[in-house]
Amino acid sequence: MASPPHLLTLADLSVKQLKSTLTHAAYLKRVSLPILQPRPHPAHTVFPPKTLQDKTIALLFSKRSTRTRLSAESAAHLLGGHPMFLSGADIQLGVNESLRDSARVIGGLVDGIFARVGDHSEIETLAAHSPVPVLNALSSLWHPTQILADMLTLLEHLPTPKPLPTAPISSTSPGHTVPPEALLGELPPQLDFDVFKDLTIAWLGDSTNVLHDMLVTYPRLGANVKVAVPKAYPCPGEVWDRVHELGCEKRIDWSSDPLQAVRDADIVVTDTWVSMGQEAEKAARLKAFAGYQITEALCKAGGAAEDWKFLHCLPRKPDEVDDDVFYGKRSLVWEEAENRKWTIMALFESMFGHWKLTPED
Amino acid sequence: MASPPHLLTLADLSVKQLKSTLTHAAYLKRVSLPILQPRPHPAHTVFPPKTLQDKTIALLFSKRSTRTRLSAESAAHLLGGHPMFLSGADIQLGVNESLRDSARVIGGLVDGIFARVGDHSEIETLAAHSPVPVLNALSSLWHPTQILADMLTLLEHLPTPKPLPTAPISSTSPGHTVPPEALLGELPPQLDFDVFKDLTIAWLGDSTNVLHDMLVTYPRLGANVKVAVPKAYPCPGEVWDRVHELGCEKRIDWSSDPLQAVRDADIVVTDTWVSMGQEAEKAARLKAFAGYQITEALCKAGGAAEDWKFLHCLPRKPDEVDDDVFYGKRSLVWEEAENRKWTIMALFESMFGHWKLTPED
Amino acid sequence: MASPPHLLTLADLSVKQLKSTLTHAAYLKRVSLPILQPRPHPAHTVFPPKTLQDKTIALLFSKRSTRTRLSAESAAHLLGGHPMFLSGADIQLGVNESLRDSARVIGGLVDGIFARVGDHSEIETLAAHSPVPVLNALSSLWHPTQILADMLTLLEHLPTPKPLPTAPISSTSPGHTVPPEALLGELPPQLDFDVFKDLTIAWLGDSTNVLHDMLVTYPRLGANVKVAVPKAYPCPGEVWDRVHELGCEKRIDWSSDPLQAVRDADIVVTDTWVSMGQEAEKAARLKAFAGYQITEALCKAGGAAEDWKFLHCLPRKPDEVDDDVFYGKRSLVWEEAENRKWTIMALFESMFGHWKLTPED
Repeated sequence: MASPPHLLTLADLSVKQLKSTLTHAAYLKRVSLPILQPRPHPAHTVFPPKTLQDKTIALLFSKRSTRTRLSAESAAHLLGGHPMFLSGADIQLGVNESLRDSARVIGGLVDGIFARVGDHSEIETLAAHSPVPVLNALSSLWHPTQILADMLTLLEHLPTPKPLPTAPISSTSPGHTVPPEALLGELPPQLDFDVFKDLTIAWLGDSTNVLHDMLVTYPRLGANVKVAVPKAYPCPGEVWDRVHELGCEKRIDWSSDPLQAVRDADIVVTDTWVSMGQEAEKAARLKAFAGYQITEALCKAGGAAEDWKFLHCLPRKPDEVDDDVFYGKRSLVWEEAENRKWTIMALFESMFGHWKLTPED
Repeated sequence: MASPPHLLTLADLSVKQLKSTLTHAAYLKRVSLPILQPRPHPAHTVFPPKTLQDKTIALLFSKRSTRTRLSAESAAHLLGGHPMFLSGADIQLGVNESLRDSARVIGGLVDGIFARVGDHSEIETLAAHSPVPVLNALSSLWHPTQILADMLTLLEHLPTPKPLPTAPISSTSPGHTVPPEALLGELPPQLDFDVFKDLTIAWLGDSTNVLHDMLVTYPRLGANVKVAVPKAYPCPGEVWDRVHELGCEKRIDWSSDPLQAVRDADIVVTDTWVSMGQEAEKAARLKAFAGYQITEALCKAGGAAEDWKFLHCLPRKPDEVDDDVFYGKRSLVWEEAENRKWTIMALFESMFGHWKLTPED
Repeated sequence: MASPPHLLTLADLSVKQLKSTLTHAAYLKRVSLPILQPRPHPAHTVFPPKTLQDKTIALLFSKRSTRTRLSAESAAHLLGGHPMFLSGADIQLGVNESLRDSARVIGGLVDGIFARVGDHSEIETLAAHSPVPVLNALSSLWHPTQILADMLTLLEHLPTPKPLPTAPISSTSPGHTVPPEALLGELPPQLDFDVFKDLTIAWLGDSTNVLHDMLVTYPRLGANVKVAVPKAYPCPGEVWDRVHELGCEKRIDWSSDPLQAVRDADIVVTDTWVSMGQEAEKAARLKAFAGYQITEALCKAGGAAEDWKFLHCLPRKPDEVDDDVFYGKRSLVWEEAENRKWTIMALFESMFGHWKLTPED
């Protein structure tokens, strides 16, 4: 048998694979949403493919999660699979046995591993020893599924995308597995990846896993990433190595000045300033991030684009963005959160169902 | 799309809706029980409707639960859905983000929320901001699913009900969604709601959420509720407001005298004297409830009906009811516990599957 | 209805039932493995029987577990059932209500109980009061599902077994329940139980539940069990009573000498020296087990068979077996871990699906 495909960061995907994955996600969303409406269903309902039927997917979460877990469980169920949630209380990686042994045993009993770990080396060890595919649900360095959700949200909400097609999808039997490749072939092209061309995306905040996957992804689609991070929190060297490897540094502007970062920004993004495990540093961090709160005033002063939009991976604290922006018209945070499900579902189907990174591999 | 239906207390249901929900529950129980017998199944088996197929239901339990959780998970599975249990350790409502944000995000990723919260205001906030239906699994004020189970138990076990029909239900394909409305139409009327006419139900114990839903429900079906609660633990004003709004106070006799409460009682009900979170008050509470233990002697002394029956929502401590009553012939506690499943299943199907409070809405 | 079958130790199964269960497990493994391969499936795929469709199985785990839980959840899903994991944090047996009450209530709401308890008396109480079958997932005295997995592993890997049959299994519809009895009838005999005849199995370590089920099982199939356990940790009297009752003592050699135990051993087995709950005794235990670590040198010095094989139920600490053996060619530990799933699946199907201990009961 072929060796299983793993995905630890979007740096692992080519631009073609990125586009294919997002198209796959948009397709799964389009097929699934009508199914999840109140009953009765319309006639000729197309059901989502049951690619994970009979399969069990381990959700190995050393850290608590809401969005990622809910997305993963509901996505696995839509595909016919059983999501098995294993919290840090259920299984302590590396405590009762070596991580290598756990990877081998868990991978031998389930059909896919979606893991949220502490140090990134943990998921590397999982991937090295698991006999089934490992997908990174968040590590100290990377957060690939978050950026896929962000991208789908931008594709849907930026001013110029073509509308999602409304032509009927040919009917298939419920419960019957439908190869997504076949169905995708029936759909007209729907996502306009040109929205990323020369788009300017600003990040204000910490150098977190969310930012890191932005750095290795957006520039390859033609977008510019402008970053403001306090000098005390530099980007890890491993991340910067991947940035260079992919030639992304040309479209990255890194500073510690929030006003500089938001200049000409079409999209403004932030994340918590105090991640899980950093509670002891809270006072020092709040001080370091003074002036980083995203507000209308800040973006106006910095010269953001008139119709700038706001993204946040959640959960949100008011420190990093005020209520006016967060609950206002610029905010795409709820759409972004819901797109976690469809992008994770696309990776689950491809990786855990077909052992391919994308439908076209 | 229509706004989602929520159910926070039985005060939210009309008498017609109450009856319809109980009839629905009795139907689901009748269809499901044969399926759950040891294999092989008889020919022409009718399967329960798979109304929640592809759907994920969040079970948001800030407090531990056994009966409610087991009922909800098994009911959701019978309907084809995925029950996702989120304990207080998995998600801390209101801690990492505002409850409003959590409601919006969780509701955007799942297809129904069954929530067991602390303060009742929490479930009100969930319902205010969730885009999908919210069903109260227990709050500081109300416990609607418990009283539905109690009512189904009384309908099945009180001396005069007509027998459940035994005529065959027309066969349908397994896995195929059957609108419950259609099937209900095929069934003869089966539940005799007249059993509640002038029935006397006694409550001895604390003014808990279980009692509160009794107060707003039984009187509307013609039953009398006689309550003995120590003066130190008065009924919350919000509850009494709903009692008055529904005109239920006419059939409620509220005192602090256990002997008065059990006089002429057909049903005697109690609950724990020390709820979760009240452990510090334990000594004071045991003292306040002296003389409230339900025994044969107490009910005889008070003049209960000769064939009085006993209900308890469980878990039970011997303080509040002795072994003779609890394990004896008067006790309907096991039947009551099992009916948690069928009544919750009815609400799940209507609310989460059809976005209706009852099949006939 | 018949009373439910329970299984607390392999001493409860006849030799015929043991063989039937292992044959059943081998069949389920053979049917399921192709389904779990990467998609697309081959034409004419046979799906595993959906015997637990609509059913919910409670996994009641007072103690943490990895292999047992993952095996049970994935097996239940393959059979169409819903595995409901209840940790010690979710439900505290005997704390909020009597264990008797919990057994009655839980058994009334689910369709099977797989329980990992502390003291063996707890699972006896569960079995005494549950209205549905109870299967022991581990207790202080017994660990039946572990030994079934060990046996299947030996049947597959010992030098003389006949190969698994490769003739096609007749096709059946996915999702349709297939009585395993019927399908088993179509298969040629596949497992060669003669491999156990005069096989010598050595145990070095503590007198744990794993050893106890070995003692009441292997001798009945003709194998010899040679045990080295420090004198400070004697075999519990209840276990020895079952050993005598089944006439197994004739093929058991009990000593405290590791070299004596491994003499002529075909299989060498161990387990942790410090079980959950014994952390306080750790220093004393490590001292008592000095000289018990399984190594090539020890087995050579003791005179084990040239091609001895190694088993370990995991998780493994290096104290009890060194890396050379554990990760080397003699080790069958990963195959053994994966066989937890198929043997548990066989018991789930028979006990929870059909209320029979084995397909032929």
